[in-house]
Amino acid sequence: MTKASVMAIRLIRFQDNHVNYTEDLLSIEEPLEIRLGFGPKENRQQQRISVTMRTPGNDFELALGFLFTEGIVKNAEDILNIQYCTELNSKENLFNVVRVELKENIAFDSSSLQRNFYTTSSCGVCGKASIDAVFQQCDRIESSVFEPSPSIIFNLTTQLDSVQTVFKYTGGIHASALFDKNGKLLLVREDVGRHNALDKLIGAVLADDGINFSDSILLLSGRASFELVQKAAMARIPNIVAVGAPSSLAVSTAEEFGIRLYGFLKENKYNQYTKNAKQ
Amino acid sequence: MTKASVMAIRLIRFQDNHVNYTEDLLSIEEPLEIRLGFGPKENRQQQRISVTMRTPGNDFELALGFLFTEGIVKNAEDILNIQYCTELNSKENLFNVVRVELKENIAFDSSSLQRNFYTTSSCGVCGKASIDAVFQQCDRIESSVFEPSPSIIFNLTTQLDSVQTVFKYTGGIHASALFDKNGKLLLVREDVGRHNALDKLIGAVLADDGINFSDSILLLSGRASFELVQKAAMARIPNIVAVGAPSSLAVSTAEEFGIRLYGFLKENKYNQYTKNAKQ
Repeated sequence: MTKASVMAIRLIRFQDNHVNYTEDLLSIEEPLEIRLGFGPKENRQQQRISVTMRTPGNDFELALGFLFTEGIVKNAEDILNIQYCTELNSKENLFNVVRVELKENIAFDSSSLQRNFYTTSSCGVCGKASIDAVFQQCDRIESSVFEPSPSIIFNLTTQLDSVQTVFKYTGGIHASALFDKNGKLLLVREDVGRHNALDKLIGAVLADDGINFSDSILLLSGRASFELVQKAAMARIPNIVAVGAPSSLAVSTAEEFGIRLYGFLKENKYNQYTKNAKQ
Repeated sequence: MTKASVMAIRLIRFQDNHVNYTEDLLSIEEPLEIRLGFGPKENRQQQRISVTMRTPGNDFELALGFLFTEGIVKNAEDILNIQYCTELNSKENLFNVVRVELKENIAFDSSSLQRNFYTTSSCGVCGKASIDAVFQQCDRIESSVFEPSPSIIFNLTTQLDSVQTVFKYTGGIHASALFDKNGKLLLVREDVGRHNALDKLIGAVLADDGINFSDSILLLSGRASFELVQKAAMARIPNIVAVGAPSSLAVSTAEEFGIRLYGFLKENKYNQYTKNAKQ
């Protein structure tokens, strides 16, 4: 059992000169706290890692994906199990706190949470430093020679539209979708936070032995920011297609990591901002 | 002098069956670090408060608005001055770090940064607890009996479109705009991060004696999340109109604080989700 992703609400609709009292569905936004259990059995420790405002659903994937894209775990094998915290005293809390148990032999340095991707004390605060900080966590993607054709790219959103259930009902949610090299939809995840939608997707892939990121295409329902490209770089995703605009730092990060970045995907046009290193 | 907000980039445009090598403009995304100086002259201290990925421009307003919506300062009078850090050794860093000097008599408890709006240890992790945490910082808005008419609301986006300069060139930026009770545009601020656009707007109003939030209308170019409604509650903004969808927690937060929340604003229709306490 988990919490619902959508809820009904009463509202007043103003249309032309009419006023109607009606109902509609909203995407649910609730906090999720991620706690980490780590260390040897005789000296087990717990650390609160983060709180994010998310849409309930796929919470364990979100936790796994977040820990992975932040560099705290290397893969799903580092984790013993993930569960909702049961010692909490109210039903509202119950499904808003997950505890991730690292295996005993997996090291976790709690002081590493003080660092973050955006700055390092040595090289200052700028886009270049932000990219360098990601390089400390992962390398450039050199291997992907596969390049999606225009016909594959033009076909991505049609497939996404058909499966984006929460968006269909609420119009208010972000999606991240993964496609294989033939443009076949593999997975889609939705969330009010676009970084959460991507973490859920990445967590789902890590937890599933049958899927991997090699030669994959990531479709983002909105704009492409530095944060999203950084997460894709951690997951070794070689192609990113955004329905909206990329930021300057999204483009330079994709460039540095050898990720092909496409944006402004419409029915009959799109832009390509970067190429892969092999091209 | 500050950094630019947009930059030109070379790209490949695929349109129908044509491929063109062309140029376009992107919104710039760069980190901004906010540092706080506080305490008596003989024992002045510095604390790093946050790093946010933002579009350069109006950085001092962003710093002021952020400190205000986080409850660290009560108004612009708490601040002695704001400036870019000059001791940094590279030009890239220079305009990405601001230092805000609190007046000597303004208390700052650095342990308060450990808390955040989303959780408190006593009441757990849920939407209700998130709203309660905002109540610890500000009260319900009881005073606004002014209610914007449909004709005023339908006219908001037309005015925004005419002044949203970065959006016009890049198509990739969020805006927050403030209107008076007659629907006259007072101020607009843009940013790749929607929370930054709102912090810039709130900072600009706080820094300007001639404008205030009483009976104002806030227009958000995208969706309405908990975080944005929380910032509006801190600023005592009685009316929020979002072009996109609100989340469940945005609606319940607006409800609790007596903020009128409107969403899905189109040319001929919009929804009203909450009313003011006085109605």
